[in-house]
Amino acid sequence: MEKLKPRTLSGFMELLPQPQQQMERMMEILRRTYALYGFTPLDTPVIESSEVLLAKGGGDTEKQIYRFTKGDADLSLRFDLTVPLAKYVALHYNDLSFPFRRYQIGKVYRGERAQRGRFREFYQADIDVIGDGKLDITNEAEIPAIIYQTFTTLGLRRFQIRVNNRKILNGFYAMQGLTERSGDIMRTVDKLDKIGADKVRTCLMEDCGLTDGQADEILAFIAITGSNEQVLSALQNYAGRSEVFDQGLEELNTVVKYLAAFGVPEENFAVDLTIARGLDYYTGTVYETTLLDHPEIGSVCSGGRYDNLAEYYTDKQLPGVGISIGLTRLFYVLGEQGMLNPDLPTAPADVLVLPMTDDLAPAIALSTRLRAAGIRTQLYTEAKKFKAKMNYADKQGIPYVIFLGDDEIAQSLVSCKDMVSGEQTKLGFDETLQRIRAGLAEKNAGAVILEK
Amino acid sequence: MEKLKPRTLSGFMELLPQPQQQMERMMEILRRTYALYGFTPLDTPVIESSEVLLAKGGGDTEKQIYRFTKGDADLSLRFDLTVPLAKYVALHYNDLSFPFRRYQIGKVYRGERAQRGRFREFYQADIDVIGDGKLDITNEAEIPAIIYQTFTTLGLRRFQIRVNNRKILNGFYAMQGLTERSGDIMRTVDKLDKIGADKVRTCLMEDCGLTDGQADEILAFIAITGSNEQVLSALQNYAGRSEVFDQGLEELNTVVKYLAAFGVPEENFAVDLTIARGLDYYTGTVYETTLLDHPEIGSVCSGGRYDNLAEYYTDKQLPGVGISIGLTRLFYVLGEQGMLNPDLPTAPADVLVLPMTDDLAPAIALSTRLRAAGIRTQLYTEAKKFKAKMNYADKQGIPYVIFLGDDEIAQSLVSCKDMVSGEQTKLGFDETLQRIRAGLAEKNAGAVILEK
Repeated sequence: MEKLKPRTLSGFMELLPQPQQQMERMMEILRRTYALYGFTPLDTPVIESSEVLLAKGGGDTEKQIYRFTKGDADLSLRFDLTVPLAKYVALHYNDLSFPFRRYQIGKVYRGERAQRGRFREFYQADIDVIGDGKLDITNEAEIPAIIYQTFTTLGLRRFQIRVNNRKILNGFYAMQGLTERSGDIMRTVDKLDKIGADKVRTCLMEDCGLTDGQADEILAFIAITGSNEQVLSALQNYAGRSEVFDQGLEELNTVVKYLAAFGVPEENFAVDLTIARGLDYYTGTVYETTLLDHPEIGSVCSGGRYDNLAEYYTDKQLPGVGISIGLTRLFYVLGEQGMLNPDLPTAPADVLVLPMTDDLAPAIALSTRLRAAGIRTQLYTEAKKFKAKMNYADKQGIPYVIFLGDDEIAQSLVSCKDMVSGEQTKLGFDETLQRIRAGLAEKNAGAVILEK
Repeated sequence: MEKLKPRTLSGFMELLPQPQQQMERMMEILRRTYALYGFTPLDTPVIESSEVLLAKGGGDTEKQIYRFTKGDADLSLRFDLTVPLAKYVALHYNDLSFPFRRYQIGKVYRGERAQRGRFREFYQADIDVIGDGKLDITNEAEIPAIIYQTFTTLGLRRFQIRVNNRKILNGFYAMQGLTERSGDIMRTVDKLDKIGADKVRTCLMEDCGLTDGQADEILAFIAITGSNEQVLSALQNYAGRSEVFDQGLEELNTVVKYLAAFGVPEENFAVDLTIARGLDYYTGTVYETTLLDHPEIGSVCSGGRYDNLAEYYTDKQLPGVGISIGLTRLFYVLGEQGMLNPDLPTAPADVLVLPMTDDLAPAIALSTRLRAAGIRTQLYTEAKKFKAKMNYADKQGIPYVIFLGDDEIAQSLVSCKDMVSGEQTKLGFDETLQRIRAGLAEKNAGAVILEK
């Protein structure tokens, strides 16, 4: 028969079993952490009606969308989890309790030009809190705690949650009479890290048409840095000139004030006036998260407060705050950086049982007993040489191999080899189980991500 | 602004938060059970090249496929998890260890005519064991154990795993000189439950062209029922006339022999000679699983042994055995039958913390402490009347509400209301935590599925 060359599409992540286990650990941590903060899991379809998905329309996203027809239906694959959430909340409004807190970890699709580290199918891991009409500022203050908890549980320490408030920016630009040019100015300021203050100044004057004095004001403003206290105190000097600014400053004060109670150490948090994010969408607190040793990766968790989640579907005012982790890209980058802990078990099983007798019943019964005790057990019965069997365990990193021969069966004992230390014991079932459990607890104790 | 009516496509399951929590529990049980048997999780793309996905070609499936172009690429959404597995194993052959045991729980797509209980996007939960060249019969014997463990962990007792062996059928038809008509005959026999033995007899003679004697033979054969021992003993009478039959009978004997060691009670297992399944694909043991009180649902977990997983992609002989649970349909049917345990917690949080002071820091710190102790905690700070806050907890089924006022803070106590019993306590943090933990353990003790 003619064979077809098997292949996986470029831009689609397909992991081998060992990295897949690491990915599963990350997902499990995200699920557990999000649940700890009272978010409920949701699962919406990957396919939506194009009309619904593209209600907002326009933008770069539309070109990237996987859109097609099936019968009479004009369909699209979701390109984020926010639009499906907006649809969900508008559609099921009467069945939901507000504030509605949901998390969703799911695949989204963007037909970007394929390049290294860019994916066309990728997981996003989102949380959002949606209010009905109003939403208290405490929800915005809680987000850094969730980001902190998520990343520390994954194993990171050297990261920083950078926070700003769009009202502070909007109020500041209003004070300067630059409201209409604020979009251009923010895009220019956003390049500060890349091109430096001098070039930003030139661009502000030449491209945005600012006067010398206006450019000075803006550079002075974004130069406000230091501890949270220092930044907030410097911002206080602008107070009283714009209602919007004052409201933003009050919100930012609240967010900072509750950090300690939320368990976020000061060193993992910074007020950063250069952060703007999604110019048309966010209206209050905005968040970015950077790895201190890998600024080149950019933000690994971003989001913010918005005033109107579902305006394309409903008259209801649905303000919210949310963050998103681009999980597939994060996983890829961590792998590239060698930051995925290689010592955590990634084997499909904790124990490989090798029967040494023709009658398999004792080995099967032993496997059944191990599984009942919660030990992930594989029974190996292929007709192979002993060495091949041991190689099978070794290659997959299965930590324990159990042999069951006539001797062991007669004595009601179990021979168990620790594949790392090489140590072999011949003990009763309960003692063997205890040793395996203790060993697994130790092996599983590490975090998924290792900082160097 | 003009509003667009939000909607979800028909044939796409989109659950409200409470049923979604039940679905998550089911998925978690499947993941844990499959892992206990040494299966490794895999995740393959939803989109594949059409050429790869449709290598086998033809059949009804092809009409149902979501197929489209993006740029120059001819793409399709996967319609099952078996073809992607075949591609995966052929593509990554050199990086895998055999037998390769994987599970995958993922969405698949079939553009079927929309009707009640039929889904166009649905989860399949598959396990497969793939051998390299050969695969020991013990793997086939283990499958009923995995099915049994999965369904009992979900909460079912009244189900039966029905098993047959395609070699027994093929051998039997060969003995009768009916090999070429075996497909038609099996399709006719398959209707036994629906149309009865007399009509099957008529069809066998009129539609399949069998003689009186041949029809008698077939009806006598499929009438072999009783205990496993009785069926196996009756089959023994046909032994010695066909090599294929004898091999099938030996395999079936092995499967039955090890049932007890695998922990499968006899009452949950039956040899059933009427089961054939996927006529072209399966070659050895085949499995179906039926709910005894709901035969109308059909099989909820099916599969079997095949000889050549990836023949369209590779010359390598890759025999395997696998089963699949149609999770979305199963969940739908269980819901329709009222079999989803309504007493299990489905709330997004275990505790709702209501601050009763202007300074939120103590309530935030308490929430942080509860979360650190593993309690799913929502802090509620919206400006609502007390009654509205209690309604919020009640409507979502949040089991505990904690109040923190000036009194409690001054005394280092916590007021906690059990929303089911109505009992309210005012105790220290540790005692409150202990009560909550004990209460949650009790509430979470039940199984997901309830038999009536």
